[in-house]
Amino acid sequence: MGGESLQPPRGTRDFYPEDLRRRDWLFAHFRDTARLYAFEEIDAPILEHAELFTRKAGEEIVEQLYHFELHDRHLALRPEMTPSVARMVMARAGGLRLPLRWFTVTQNWRYERMTRGRLREHYQWNMDIWGEPGVAAEAELIGAIFTLLDRTGLPRGAVRIRVNSRALLEESLRRGILARRPEAFAPLCVVIDKIGKIGADAVIDQLADPAGAVGLARAEAADVVAMLDARTLDDAARLGGEGSLALADLRRLFELIDSTGRGGDLVFDASVVRGLAYYTGVVFEAFDARGVLRAVCGGGRYDRLLETLGGRALPAVGFGFGDVVIMELLADHGLLPDLRRTIDEVIFPLGEAQRPAALALTGRLRTAGHSVQTVLGTPRLKKVLTDAAADGARRVWILGPDELTRGVATVRDLQSGEQREEPLVS
Amino acid sequence: MGGESLQPPRGTRDFYPEDLRRRDWLFAHFRDTARLYAFEEIDAPILEHAELFTRKAGEEIVEQLYHFELHDRHLALRPEMTPSVARMVMARAGGLRLPLRWFTVTQNWRYERMTRGRLREHYQWNMDIWGEPGVAAEAELIGAIFTLLDRTGLPRGAVRIRVNSRALLEESLRRGILARRPEAFAPLCVVIDKIGKIGADAVIDQLADPAGAVGLARAEAADVVAMLDARTLDDAARLGGEGSLALADLRRLFELIDSTGRGGDLVFDASVVRGLAYYTGVVFEAFDARGVLRAVCGGGRYDRLLETLGGRALPAVGFGFGDVVIMELLADHGLLPDLRRTIDEVIFPLGEAQRPAALALTGRLRTAGHSVQTVLGTPRLKKVLTDAAADGARRVWILGPDELTRGVATVRDLQSGEQREEPLVS
Repeated sequence: MGGESLQPPRGTRDFYPEDLRRRDWLFAHFRDTARLYAFEEIDAPILEHAELFTRKAGEEIVEQLYHFELHDRHLALRPEMTPSVARMVMARAGGLRLPLRWFTVTQNWRYERMTRGRLREHYQWNMDIWGEPGVAAEAELIGAIFTLLDRTGLPRGAVRIRVNSRALLEESLRRGILARRPEAFAPLCVVIDKIGKIGADAVIDQLADPAGAVGLARAEAADVVAMLDARTLDDAARLGGEGSLALADLRRLFELIDSTGRGGDLVFDASVVRGLAYYTGVVFEAFDARGVLRAVCGGGRYDRLLETLGGRALPAVGFGFGDVVIMELLADHGLLPDLRRTIDEVIFPLGEAQRPAALALTGRLRTAGHSVQTVLGTPRLKKVLTDAAADGARRVWILGPDELTRGVATVRDLQSGEQREEPLVS
Repeated sequence: MGGESLQPPRGTRDFYPEDLRRRDWLFAHFRDTARLYAFEEIDAPILEHAELFTRKAGEEIVEQLYHFELHDRHLALRPEMTPSVARMVMARAGGLRLPLRWFTVTQNWRYERMTRGRLREHYQWNMDIWGEPGVAAEAELIGAIFTLLDRTGLPRGAVRIRVNSRALLEESLRRGILARRPEAFAPLCVVIDKIGKIGADAVIDQLADPAGAVGLARAEAADVVAMLDARTLDDAARLGGEGSLALADLRRLFELIDSTGRGGDLVFDASVVRGLAYYTGVVFEAFDARGVLRAVCGGGRYDRLLETLGGRALPAVGFGFGDVVIMELLADHGLLPDLRRTIDEVIFPLGEAQRPAALALTGRLRTAGHSVQTVLGTPRLKKVLTDAAADGARRVWILGPDELTRGVATVRDLQSGEQREEPLVS
């Protein structure tokens, strides 16, 4: 074995100790934030029946599914967590006390054929609320995103949240362009979502493609794209009309976020529809205020997903927050934490004859809760001290024959350089 | 979708909140123990090139590989962690300061065709030391296993550790039966490992199978099986002869474990060889002293694995400790922890008009580090109090129009039942 096989599969990552410390730091913030919001963590297998993920809406996420046949089963590595969570909700339908507040921190897989520094796996923090139709649920989730961002040390305003409602667009289109074809709405959103990447003209082309899932007339497609220019709730009011329920929801959401002091970091943007077909209502994404990186996280309401999977409808809203973009953003801001390894004690038996006594001491210190490294082999003292300092140790305990005869260890404090003797009480 | 698709794939597990709390409890003990021993955590992708795992030694673990072709690559879900760790060591060969003390807590997959309540995925805690040839490394790992067992609350003696050395058996066989065919040793160990499951006669049949990888004469096979009866180091001395290095290592290992006070929980057992082909020296497994469950964990020295993978030899020793057997054992002992959900505060706005003030209060409490649940919708007070108690909340804050007028909240302590008013300072 050699060459390629020495590397992890293309687009995947190894986590060496320094990488894992950083990942842990981020995951701890995900979990601590979820705890502040009183969400409960769950998990599901990374491998699911592929059927759980295959939808007909032409989403990138489905096209990039890591799927395969194995022993006559069609299986897939999950590309996102929401379908698994939905499956778990359905499997215990009726037995769960609503609303549910669940979160996950999981690895998801997407097979991207053309990789340009993009990964095929990433970790994602998901928070979902099931069973609550009102935007108070959205306000909780958006609040959690702001809390996470604050905890990372990012200054206020470095990341803001764009919000829109698919229902607002849908209300408008159902009165007109899509009056007779409501089923075209989900694929229409999937196309619109690409506008930042491919531009307005290409979106119009795709919406007006007679072979596509949307199939608008060209003028209609241009009208849809024009609607996406709205950037204020007043613009949105002109779009939705004053009796619009979706508009009322958006206004209420802004009011609730205002009450938490973060109204200034929430902006309306009619072009935000998100790329997943199953969203039905409010959608949102956190973005780098400099406009450099892609979305930091995204989410929305998906009140009809359980129906799609064959269950009873249950209102739901959630978001996914990946590990890659936030780390890039923190690096850009000079905010990546410097996480050194630390150890309390290093125990150094000068010779193999002192090892049993060294192990007995080690055991006592560990029982007292200290992180203790026993020096293996019998390197020279100088190397032991250098390595101990590099490992972030606080103290080195030296046990030689002379020390053992007197029932002591020589303890060197690596910060102060001071040395003293400690009795080896058992 | 329905029926089967509502379930996770056969042999895999969903983790609902109560399941995840229990998993977290175990994982925290794994990680805390590793921290006491000054090991560093690493991780690798769950999907690897299948070549990393395919060996020719007829191990069950390779036969049960979850592997598939995808876009012209032969990929596999890892059945165990050691090959990935070995790959990471090789990839940075020369750049890593030895000895390495690394640990992992990862999910591994095995496709077992005949399932009898056995799972196809499990989690495993691995600890490995790379770069140390002496049994002081084994002593550290065995010490960590005892520490973990103690932390779970298991009484001393409930789990003991059987130890042997493949090198002892190999020394003996190389002088005789396998003098001309040293390559038959690894597959011989794989067969011997099954003795507890299939019995001595079936092991002799397989060792003497002319079409098998070992191909001993029947009398030779019977001699090998007879060697496995040794249960003391003195028996082992007769087997290995007094100049045996492997025997000296075992004696030293017992001496070191004795010095930690756990000598009584370590027993020599010549029948322990473990089922992985790559072990070369000391092997060990923790076992249920009642003899009811299968091995709690297993490990050993694998000094030639890096060579097998095409690298330079590097001494290494490690163990894998699964999540399933230990939980069964704790359940049998009545030691499964009762882990209830807990929340600090539940905030209940009596009506939607009070929600903005409720959110402002919620934000202040969360900033102070409290775990806070905001009641969604406007259920009746009685339901809120019942749900809050079921969720393990300490206090319920009630914000009605009267309270807001006076700038207070009514706070009910759910343990004492007492109620008081708290000012809503901002």
